Amino acid sequence: MRIPYEEMKSEFKRIFMEKGFNEESAEQAATSFADNSCDGVYSHGVNRFPRVVQYIEKGYIKPNVKATKIGGLGALENWDGHLGLGSLIAKQCMDRAIDLASQYGIGCVAIKNNNHWMRGGAYGWQAANAGCIGICWTNTQPNMPAWGAMDRRIGNNPLIMAIPRQKGHIVVDMAMSQYSYGKIEEYKLKNKDLPVPGGFDSNGAISTDPAEIEKTWRMLPVGFWKGSSLSIVLDLISAVLSGGNTTADVGKLGGDEYALSQVLIAIDPTKLNDSENIEKALDESIEYIKSSLPVSEDGEIYYPGERAAFTREDNLKHGIPVDDEVWRQITST
Amino acid sequence: MRIPYEEMKSEFKRIFMEKGFNEESAEQAATSFADNSCDGVYSHGVNRFPRVVQYIEKGYIKPNVKATKIGGLGALENWDGHLGLGSLIAKQCMDRAIDLASQYGIGCVAIKNNNHWMRGGAYGWQAANAGCIGICWTNTQPNMPAWGAMDRRIGNNPLIMAIPRQKGHIVVDMAMSQYSYGKIEEYKLKNKDLPVPGGFDSNGAISTDPAEIEKTWRMLPVGFWKGSSLSIVLDLISAVLSGGNTTADVGKLGGDEYALSQVLIAIDPTKLNDSENIEKALDESIEYIKSSLPVSEDGEIYYPGERAAFTREDNLKHGIPVDDEVWRQITST
Repeated sequence: MRIPYEEMKSEFKRIFMEKGFNEESAEQAATSFADNSCDGVYSHGVNRFPRVVQYIEKGYIKPNVKATKIGGLGALENWDGHLGLGSLIAKQCMDRAIDLASQYGIGCVAIKNNNHWMRGGAYGWQAANAGCIGICWTNTQPNMPAWGAMDRRIGNNPLIMAIPRQKGHIVVDMAMSQYSYGKIEEYKLKNKDLPVPGGFDSNGAISTDPAEIEKTWRMLPVGFWKGSSLSIVLDLISAVLSGGNTTADVGKLGGDEYALSQVLIAIDPTKLNDSENIEKALDESIEYIKSSLPVSEDGEIYYPGERAAFTREDNLKHGIPVDDEVWRQITST
Repeated sequence: MRIPYEEMKSEFKRIFMEKGFNEESAEQAATSFADNSCDGVYSHGVNRFPRVVQYIEKGYIKPNVKATKIGGLGALENWDGHLGLGSLIAKQCMDRAIDLASQYGIGCVAIKNNNHWMRGGAYGWQAANAGCIGICWTNTQPNMPAWGAMDRRIGNNPLIMAIPRQKGHIVVDMAMSQYSYGKIEEYKLKNKDLPVPGGFDSNGAISTDPAEIEKTWRMLPVGFWKGSSLSIVLDLISAVLSGGNTTADVGKLGGDEYALSQVLIAIDPTKLNDSENIEKALDESIEYIKSSLPVSEDGEIYYPGERAAFTREDNLKHGIPVDDEVWRQITST
């Protein structure tokens, strides 16, 4: 079924209010979950919503909480998220990074004690909508083995980079695992092989078979040893700057994922360059890359973020696709 | 053969001076090439030296040039590298980013018109040696197809992140292609398959056969579509901030690689957290990751940068390994 954006948002808002959020927080929270769904990131929107409600009920997510500043110098600050709703705390702190960027050209805010921020790309789009380059990442619970290891001791720590552009922002949002757990499940249910290797089978070989990967849960980092290294460094920078948990620390919390560390950076390119030159450089590059010779005759080369914009437009027009059972569960909450 | 560090450095210095560098610049330039070699990055040290000499002779690399500031606000600046020696210009600008970080907590310097900076990791180590987190990247000439494309229109744009640590800095230095051209050549000469897929064969299938990949030069980005996207965004941020060339622009220069754009960020974590807490978090995490269950019985899990430190120690003790012919060519320059 497809649910109109406003209907989905108002359901979310109703439930957030029933779970103790005041109207302002509920409105913002509902907007963030509806926006993620509308952009096609259902795993961190409508499909995740029931688990978020569960986390509120368990007391991991505290309603109506705002982040507060711990300290800082100039363009660099750290904030405590006090276990508020991940997406609202992250949005507040990206707004602060954007403020800092307007004053210092660049702003960097590290957060400790935040919950899962859902779709990391949201804060990239947020920065770009404010005319800033956005760079941000979060750590996670341990969910992937380091390169050369069997057991899961590093996170998949998504990294986001966004560039504002009049004809459409350019946004990359990439976890450090080649696939999410959800994507591997999805292929297994369809009885299909993954398009590219996603993990190790029970013989220790690199595999495209989702059922085999599920037996080991040895997920493959992007770029093999490279993504493993990048994951470690992203985690440690977020913890060192925020003073919050490392992935190792989050692993000790008993299996649930909360009290994460995040970094949000905003840079205002117009402090260095005039908008006209910037738009020209971006448009020419996008045009050059998109006019590559495609692999298949009718193939198209997309720039990062291009398809999210298509999906958003389509979902706003035709409603947001949602599994009947998921929607039934939400509406009966 | 193995050449003592000081001997290698003094050969480099002699040649830089013969090619028009004054003593101070020659000393710094020779140090950077000897250091890269000593750390085991021969491809961007001793093995690259003959090509650097060629670029000086062609006039692409200008001796004795320093970067100059174009503009900026607060913690954000852009500089013109005036086609100086890539590694000296980048070092100068990372020094400036570190200065800005001491004043504003974070500093970001974008450079235009710089030459190839050789080993990007060097500027990560430089920041870490100054007690700062270092984040930096460069664009390159087009050398990899975008995801879905046949022809090479994006760069392999190395990304570096470094964290200072008393017991050994943590440094990742990763190009956006799974392998360098040099590494693929190396496996081909040894008649060996790559350990993991590195490109496409002539049938368009993902391959570990270096000879097949050489036929197409369709290099594989790290994480397939993910590294392709990250490469595009890194390129565009560097160009937009510096006001310099995009990868697309560099591709129009006629085949040689010069006039690149780079971003250097330094962050001082001690402005937010005390050193003792930082070292504790880092050591505990490294210990946790290193004590993973290894894949092979005698396997070891390394943290990013750990092996560069081993190599450095070994090469300082026993001399830097260099191909006889390469060394003959250099000493007869």
